Amino acid sequence: MESRRILGIDPGSRITGYAVIDSDGARSCQVESGCIRLSPEVTVAHRLGDIFRAVTGIIERCRPDEFAIEEVFLSKNASSALKLGQARGAAICAAATQGLPVHEYAARSVKQAVVGNGAAAKEQVQHMVKLLLNLREDLSPDQADALAVALAHAHSLSLNDRLTRMAGAVR
Amino acid sequence: MESRRILGIDPGSRITGYAVIDSDGARSCQVESGCIRLSPEVTVAHRLGDIFRAVTGIIERCRPDEFAIEEVFLSKNASSALKLGQARGAAICAAATQGLPVHEYAARSVKQAVVGNGAAAKEQVQHMVKLLLNLREDLSPDQADALAVALAHAHSLSLNDRLTRMAGAVR
Repeated sequence: MESRRILGIDPGSRITGYAVIDSDGARSCQVESGCIRLSPEVTVAHRLGDIFRAVTGIIERCRPDEFAIEEVFLSKNASSALKLGQARGAAICAAATQGLPVHEYAARSVKQAVVGNGAAAKEQVQHMVKLLLNLREDLSPDQADALAVALAHAHSLSLNDRLTRMAGAVR
Repeated sequence: MESRRILGIDPGSRITGYAVIDSDGARSCQVESGCIRLSPEVTVAHRLGDIFRAVTGIIERCRPDEFAIEEVFLSKNASSALKLGQARGAAICAAATQGLPVHEYAARSVKQAVVGNGAAAKEQVQHMVKLLLNLREDLSPDQADALAVALAHAHSLSLNDRLTRMAGAVR
């Protein structure tokens, strides 16, 4: 398939990980990745505005074709689910207002795509992300999760591409 | 106090109520109010983008000075808390990116301010909202809740204004 630029986001109310990769399905490489750290000293509204502005800035700078976001872990705590939902809403809003297609992946599917095991440990995910993208530097957990969701989307695009070709060949 | 224009929002993942009022503390009047209805047939990302764009549009059109939003009811269900959080995040993002001060009010404080009873029934809130704003038309529940949170904020602004004057007089 032709190369696609993917923005992956791991949303959080304190730290939001982001990653931009280029992938042609067979090979992927990192464009940039990092963390949006939110000050605990400002209001929630201020923090949500910061997520929105930061994600909008990354989209304007890197011009991704696709946006992939991890489905948040649903804790039993409704209060933390609400906070995560707000952070997620801010990031998705930034993508939606820039006209990017938004794709969501459950944590399990991300692990399945990157490690081949939906129940893989965090360390295994980090290890495979570094291996697949040929990275030497240490990754923060949120940065690794954002890279993983971007890779999971690249994997899904490549699968769809192959299925479309196969359907074409059969016809 | 000098007249302030307040945008009140009652966030929801299906319907988001909005209300714009002018208030000088003693008297309030409605500028406009209504509902942002979200199609259940489009993706969540699309709906969040719609909330963001609609609230941004209201802010650009009505130029409010303040933004007030109801704290969502925390159900025991983490999944619905997440959805509400996302809708809330989208609305707050619109206010934050336009530089509006964001104020949050618990449902209890809104009822206390409008009816004088934190445990008032929905019908009592609707009745008092119509009375206080001299409205004749029937209000949808989300529209009434948005008007109520805007009135609660007007009440709080007026209280603060009086306290500041009293502190000045004592000095």
